[in-house]
Amino acid sequence: MGKGRLEAFSDGVIAIIITIMVLELKVPHGAQWRDLGPLWPAFLSYVLSFVYVGIYWNNHHHLLQTCKRVSGSVLWANLHLLFWLSLLPFVTGENHFAPRPSALYGGVLLAAAIAYAILQRRIIAANGGDDPLRRAIGFDWKGKLSPLFYALAIAATFVRPWVAQALFVGVAVMWLVPDRRIERALRGGDG
Amino acid sequence: MGKGRLEAFSDGVIAIIITIMVLELKVPHGAQWRDLGPLWPAFLSYVLSFVYVGIYWNNHHHLLQTCKRVSGSVLWANLHLLFWLSLLPFVTGENHFAPRPSALYGGVLLAAAIAYAILQRRIIAANGGDDPLRRAIGFDWKGKLSPLFYALAIAATFVRPWVAQALFVGVAVMWLVPDRRIERALRGGDG
Amino acid sequence: MGKGRLEAFSDGVIAIIITIMVLELKVPHGAQWRDLGPLWPAFLSYVLSFVYVGIYWNNHHHLLQTCKRVSGSVLWANLHLLFWLSLLPFVTGENHFAPRPSALYGGVLLAAAIAYAILQRRIIAANGGDDPLRRAIGFDWKGKLSPLFYALAIAATFVRPWVAQALFVGVAVMWLVPDRRIERALRGGDG
Amino acid sequence: MGKGRLEAFSDGVIAIIITIMVLELKVPHGAQWRDLGPLWPAFLSYVLSFVYVGIYWNNHHHLLQTCKRVSGSVLWANLHLLFWLSLLPFVTGENHFAPRPSALYGGVLLAAAIAYAILQRRIIAANGGDDPLRRAIGFDWKGKLSPLFYALAIAATFVRPWVAQALFVGVAVMWLVPDRRIERALRGGDG
Repeated sequence: MGKGRLEAFSDGVIAIIITIMVLELKVPHGAQWRDLGPLWPAFLSYVLSFVYVGIYWNNHHHLLQTCKRVSGSVLWANLHLLFWLSLLPFVTGENHFAPRPSALYGGVLLAAAIAYAILQRRIIAANGGDDPLRRAIGFDWKGKLSPLFYALAIAATFVRPWVAQALFVGVAVMWLVPDRRIERALRGGDG
Repeated sequence: MGKGRLEAFSDGVIAIIITIMVLELKVPHGAQWRDLGPLWPAFLSYVLSFVYVGIYWNNHHHLLQTCKRVSGSVLWANLHLLFWLSLLPFVTGENHFAPRPSALYGGVLLAAAIAYAILQRRIIAANGGDDPLRRAIGFDWKGKLSPLFYALAIAATFVRPWVAQALFVGVAVMWLVPDRRIERALRGGDG
Repeated sequence: MGKGRLEAFSDGVIAIIITIMVLELKVPHGAQWRDLGPLWPAFLSYVLSFVYVGIYWNNHHHLLQTCKRVSGSVLWANLHLLFWLSLLPFVTGENHFAPRPSALYGGVLLAAAIAYAILQRRIIAANGGDDPLRRAIGFDWKGKLSPLFYALAIAATFVRPWVAQALFVGVAVMWLVPDRRIERALRGGDG
Repeated sequence: MGKGRLEAFSDGVIAIIITIMVLELKVPHGAQWRDLGPLWPAFLSYVLSFVYVGIYWNNHHHLLQTCKRVSGSVLWANLHLLFWLSLLPFVTGENHFAPRPSALYGGVLLAAAIAYAILQRRIIAANGGDDPLRRAIGFDWKGKLSPLFYALAIAATFVRPWVAQALFVGVAVMWLVPDRRIERALRGGDG
């Protein structure tokens, strides 16, 4: 199977995920400003999920650029990642800031992060585990920290719900900030 | 009509089918763990349908790789397959494990399997029925067993509902397992 | 603007239209066969609309194959056609066989047929109105008969609702049947 | 990241936005003409949003044609634009003509216009700010007037709601009319 079709299919699924999340924002029936009040949590939750899907789309693209051969296991590792991302519209919604739904949200992010790590390994294996590819992916400190933060966030939902939200936002910001200098600094210890 | 556009259109439709199924998972209104309880059947049903659509996408791609000419009948046989797949989001849902909805699910899978077999024949016919193509498709024991298992599952829903579910999962696993060795064994009898 | 992007965008929109129609099929809450009874009209309506969208996708592709230049007016004529097609999921549903919704359905089909005719003219104009293109499109007796039949169907909804349904099915069948021989016969009068 | 994939992803998202808006048109349960009455505001609102998304798709394509290099900031400026466009299905609906929802609609259009301006600047910056590119984009009087009109429309919703609607329609018409002559006239002062 060609890389092109895998990429096009993934792009299609990600484009749909990022767009149908808006269907979870229910239009208020009243026409007053105060009718919009209950929408804020859902809206913020939508913004957060939109940014996460955007980050995954971006990273997914960079990852596939390093990939030359697509094996059956790469294909299924990719569908596995898309499966967890496809649950984001489901966990994005009005109850987002309550403890349990918040834990559920963290669980989906954690599963997606693990699925992404598995996809990375499958791609390295399918391409013969050669060094340039491994080096292109790098030490991947963000990929190692994210699942840890998600797990912490899930635990935090039961004690301090706002800590969980702060961690979700924090991980997103960590991925958004271009990390060339940070990576150089971290790698400076090795060099 | 070029093969490329048929492939791109099918990919688009399959990407949408696999993604809108999640809209059938209704977010629970409560914020307690026990509110998630009734979601389990719908979730498992979602996982199963996601895997089935993934298998169809994968097989569809392999099938089209062997296809050089797209005739009008290939085009409509393809739309016929997409029609039955498009019903998967409809039959995937909360009632999935009850006898009647379960039979309905089996019915859609059976119809999709038959539509796939028709598409295969149309593609062979459109490409002159040449031997290399037929050999690429092979004896297709999975394609022959699947409709049989779906029919058994439909019958089982009225007697032992869990047998139907086991058959749905079993057929999916049969398609997921790479079958090079199994096929070689089966073909060993002919060789 | 390149033809490729217009084609890809149209394919995307048509793929979404054909797939989200299934969301109008509401899963029955009961788990008995008789709970499926009220679904029949919606299901038949879904089949009909699926076939119509399939026909439009097919014709749209043939039309664009004859097109070399895409002007601003071609682009908007194309969006105009997509607009009417996008209303098909809305008019496809449970009430489909009642007189008024049936008239509405006919109205959307009529508007789409007119939009298609406009697009055809815009494409001929954008490509200099040259004869080969015009000849490729041909006398277009189907394109001329369809709006007439839709108008008849709309009128029929107020007198004999089943006549309207028969006309909707009839026009779809007319487009499905490969028309090489019929066209040759019709053109035989000119030749 | 290649421009092609950014374009394809944006096209996918825009195609989904333009199509799922129709899901906000709720089918009336009755089968009488008068049951369609309450649908008119939602329908007109749908037409307006469809035209706006069409205009954005068209402009987005022209903008990307001038773009040779895609940087990380172009990518996120593009996702930022898609974010605001993705809210259009949410603000398009039955309450559209009431003052507050109308202001909300204007707010989304205003945010999208600002996001578009940011994307334009990011693309110019990513391509070295060279003069041909800047000239291709031009003085962009429409891009400068639109946010102003949206702001006026938001203010008008509290005083004369119909003025807001007229402004929304007016800006759409301004973008629809091919502006070669108008631009030539405006540039005539410079030349």
